[in-house]
Amino acid sequence: MAPRPPAPYLPTSHGFDSYYGIPYSNDMRIDPKAKLVAHMPNPENAAQDHANADRFKNKPYLPLMRDDKVVEFPADQANLTQQYTQEALRFIRQKSKQPFFLYLAYTKPHTPLYPSKPFQERSLRGLYGDVVEEIDDSVGQILTELQRQGLDENTLVIFTSDNGPWLSRKLRGGSSGLLRGGKSTTWEGGHRTPCIARWPGVVPPHSVNAGMTSTLDIFPTIMAFAGKNVPDDRVMDGHSLKNVLTDNAQSPRDTMYFYDSGVLCAVRWKHWKLHLEIKPDIGGRFSKPESPLLFNLDQDPSEKYDIAQQHPDVVAAIKEIIEKHNATMD
Amino acid sequence: MAPRPPAPYLPTSHGFDSYYGIPYSNDMRIDPKAKLVAHMPNPENAAQDHANADRFKNKPYLPLMRDDKVVEFPADQANLTQQYTQEALRFIRQKSKQPFFLYLAYTKPHTPLYPSKPFQERSLRGLYGDVVEEIDDSVGQILTELQRQGLDENTLVIFTSDNGPWLSRKLRGGSSGLLRGGKSTTWEGGHRTPCIARWPGVVPPHSVNAGMTSTLDIFPTIMAFAGKNVPDDRVMDGHSLKNVLTDNAQSPRDTMYFYDSGVLCAVRWKHWKLHLEIKPDIGGRFSKPESPLLFNLDQDPSEKYDIAQQHPDVVAAIKEIIEKHNATMD
Repeated sequence: MAPRPPAPYLPTSHGFDSYYGIPYSNDMRIDPKAKLVAHMPNPENAAQDHANADRFKNKPYLPLMRDDKVVEFPADQANLTQQYTQEALRFIRQKSKQPFFLYLAYTKPHTPLYPSKPFQERSLRGLYGDVVEEIDDSVGQILTELQRQGLDENTLVIFTSDNGPWLSRKLRGGSSGLLRGGKSTTWEGGHRTPCIARWPGVVPPHSVNAGMTSTLDIFPTIMAFAGKNVPDDRVMDGHSLKNVLTDNAQSPRDTMYFYDSGVLCAVRWKHWKLHLEIKPDIGGRFSKPESPLLFNLDQDPSEKYDIAQQHPDVVAAIKEIIEKHNATMD
Repeated sequence: MAPRPPAPYLPTSHGFDSYYGIPYSNDMRIDPKAKLVAHMPNPENAAQDHANADRFKNKPYLPLMRDDKVVEFPADQANLTQQYTQEALRFIRQKSKQPFFLYLAYTKPHTPLYPSKPFQERSLRGLYGDVVEEIDDSVGQILTELQRQGLDENTLVIFTSDNGPWLSRKLRGGSSGLLRGGKSTTWEGGHRTPCIARWPGVVPPHSVNAGMTSTLDIFPTIMAFAGKNVPDDRVMDGHSLKNVLTDNAQSPRDTMYFYDSGVLCAVRWKHWKLHLEIKPDIGGRFSKPESPLLFNLDQDPSEKYDIAQQHPDVVAAIKEIIEKHNATMD
């Protein structure tokens, strides 16, 4: 029987009207005994190259689900990008006469990597590039469909990523460019990702904003564009970016808290970032530097040069921010 | 008496009709006994901040020369960028009715860093950014003068740099972005620098070429544009980039030899780079890796992932190129 996660974990239990996809990461499986999602041992070995990928691609025991039903098992990882895209195109056509919200979270380029046949061995960047090119092609299909449906100038499209590269996956794990560290670290390479927004006639084209924002801000932003208030029965951590998008205004966000497993590891305030705890990679151990490390991200986005000694006032200001923040936490 | 280097070292002894500038690096001085150019001890200490810079800026004993005469001693480092620019503007006005070659090699942003007053504490990037902004402003003045003289569509302008950042100077030494290493290493961060070429009507605007080129190629390129042959009484190491510039053609260069102090440290061939000897920084010692390191620069421009084991054929091909190269060397 195909594994499926308990209903409370599915998006349809969290406000989505419908759902299509793999209900956890593509290097996970459901442990048949504990009924829990656990990381597969050595998922990367499955994808050493395209030839091996063919032999292994069905091994991860991934169920492809629509709403709360398994529709393909085991799912073929090499088809997922195309399947998600086709589902998104169908959804857009169905909803073209009414407002809609589509959250299209591709499984790729998470490892293990499987491009579909037409995208194999196409990119200079190797397997990782193949997978990214396939997503790029899919985004093109989505934008074209919006135009076809006459929704182009009536739709905000946001393209972004949840985290930086998984460095231990080496060439299969992406690159954080000049940023230090990657996924599961609180260096900029783990958290700072590009974000592109498109809405002809509303978001000015070719404008760049280097302000600090967060995916936490997407919900309040969409609510603001829809003319709705965010719920006032709870504390919201996001800020509306409506003015950032329409007028390239300064971001309303000046502080970001970097947590890992409930530990506050770093705080960014304006262009300063203070590191209290360091973790080298996924599964690594936290270590506390002798005293907190301070970086000026405007001058040193690679977080190479600790200047805490030269700026005790900034260190003190951020420590005060942390104290206030801690007082608000359960 | 103002120090001056012996005439054979000056550009006017190497084919230039006239010369204006400081005849060696701005962290050097002439040793009064040996009459040789030597590095100043600790030049960076002179420029800890703008206040200190004022006290120290005349210390390096730099002569500013026109042709073979010292015209200012000691030169004020904070004025050099403006002085070079003014001299260049004069030169362009004087030569506006005839073909000319102008080699404008700013002393900055070599350390120690001194922007002139209007550019102090202006840049988010700090002192280094101030100095770069002043050069940017100067380049603007040069381009404007070319337009004023009606030379805009008749002049090839090339903007590039000799090497990457001096990493031990930290925030004062620039950044190599995602590239590994810096100046005086044979990692890409030491050698790969941007190059911008402009010639309205001849070089297509906004085109990007990622091919491998070298400053060795500038001489043959200019000769080709001038309709002249390069000298045939010697072996030339450069290739004309005329077609690269006019038609965005593939670069004629597929190999680059990375030397340090006469030691062949690395060879790039197409998108591959093989490292035979490693030096960590200026003054560091060479070390030989157990076996040569191979990187795929298309996939891994940061030279993070040695893949020599996976590509013995490429390692062998580059070793053959090296043997042939060595056979041609004196």
